[in-house]
Amino acid sequence: MNVAPAERYMKLLEDRIKKDGRLINSDILKVDSFLNHQIDVGLMDAMGEEFARCFSGLGVNKIVTIESSGIPLACAAARAMGGLPVVFAKKAVPNTMTEEFYSATVRSFTKNKVYEAIVSKRFLSEDDVCLIIDDFLASGEAAEGLVKIIEQAGARCAGVGAAIEKEFQGGSAKLRERGLKVVSLAVITSLADDRIQFKSTYEC
Amino acid sequence: MNVAPAERYMKLLEDRIKKDGRLINSDILKVDSFLNHQIDVGLMDAMGEEFARCFSGLGVNKIVTIESSGIPLACAAARAMGGLPVVFAKKAVPNTMTEEFYSATVRSFTKNKVYEAIVSKRFLSEDDVCLIIDDFLASGEAAEGLVKIIEQAGARCAGVGAAIEKEFQGGSAKLRERGLKVVSLAVITSLADDRIQFKSTYEC
Repeated sequence: MNVAPAERYMKLLEDRIKKDGRLINSDILKVDSFLNHQIDVGLMDAMGEEFARCFSGLGVNKIVTIESSGIPLACAAARAMGGLPVVFAKKAVPNTMTEEFYSATVRSFTKNKVYEAIVSKRFLSEDDVCLIIDDFLASGEAAEGLVKIIEQAGARCAGVGAAIEKEFQGGSAKLRERGLKVVSLAVITSLADDRIQFKSTYEC
Repeated sequence: MNVAPAERYMKLLEDRIKKDGRLINSDILKVDSFLNHQIDVGLMDAMGEEFARCFSGLGVNKIVTIESSGIPLACAAARAMGGLPVVFAKKAVPNTMTEEFYSATVRSFTKNKVYEAIVSKRFLSEDDVCLIIDDFLASGEAAEGLVKIIEQAGARCAGVGAAIEKEFQGGSAKLRERGLKVVSLAVITSLADDRIQFKSTYEC
C-alpha cells in the first residue's frame, strides 16, 4: 500500500465533490457536472490510473461496466491498464443483437426501475479475468448483476472499482462478503443533515 | 487537407470493419466487437486524434454525444482536443434530474423506437461551440436531435463526426444541407448483396 498517491487521488475527487456535488436528499448526491452527464475526461484519466495501480498484478484482461455512466471511467481504466478491451452491459436488447447473451436482473436506484443487463456471449469467456468499473457504488445491485454475468461465462471477477461509494447503502459490504476486492476512490459515509461526510481512510 | 493521415485513418477503420464487422442485412452492419458493445480504446484514441485534426481551428469548446455508444468516441475526441468537457444526452429522465432541460425527439434506427434525448440546461450555453460525435451516422436522426438541443441553448454546432457512416441512409446529406461540416472516418455506400462497399474518397 502506497500512501502518497492514494491520498492524492482521494483528495482530487473529494475536492471536486465538495466543489461541484449537489445534495438532492439524504440518499442522492448529484455529480452530473463532471461524472455522469457532463464528463471531465482529465479526471477520468486520473481515476483510471489509480484503478490501474490498485488492481495491478491480478491478471485482469478485461474491463466490464454497464451503460451509460460507467463507460467513460471504464475506458479510462482500460487505457491506463495498457489498452484492455472494455465490455459494457446493455440495458435493452438492440435488434443488432442476434445471438445468445448472458443476463442478470438489476434494480436501478436512481431510475427506480428493474431492468435486464445483458452481455453477448461472444465477449466473455472462461479465460477472462474481469475488473468491474462503475461511476457509483451504492446498494451494489449493478455490480452484483455484472458479477452474475461474469460467473455465467465461467470467467473470474478480480474486483470492483467505483469512483464514488455511498457506503451507508451497503453495496461494498455485500461485494466484499463475496471475496471481491473493492476500491472506491471517494467513500461517503453519510448524506444526512445536508452534509456530505467522507470516510477518512482509503483502501487500495 | 492533409492526405497522408486521412488515408491512414480511413485504412485503420476500414480494415477493422472488414476483419470484424458482420453484415446482418442490407441495412445493418454489426461492429460490436470493437465499437459499441466491446470497445477497443486504442482505436477510439486514434479516431479521436483524427477528429481533433479535422475540426481544429473552429473554436470547439465542448463535445456533445448521446448515450451510450457515442460516449467512448466522444471521450477520446475530447481528450485529443486538450481535455474538452463531454456532455452526453440522456434517453430517459433520471430522478436526479431535478432541473430544466433541453430535449428533442429521436427515432432510433437499431432499436426501432422513438425516445426523448435530454440535456440539462446547466451544461449548454450560448457561449458554447459544440462538436457532435457519435459511433454511427445513418439516417442522421440522433445528430439532428443533438443539433436541435444545441440550437435550443443558443449555442453553435461546429460539425458532426462519426466513426462509420452509412451514406445510403441519407443522414450526412441532410446535415450538410444545414451547413454543418460532417466527417465520417469510414463511409459505407452499400451493404447490399452481402457486401460492404466503402467510398474511396475521404473528406476532412
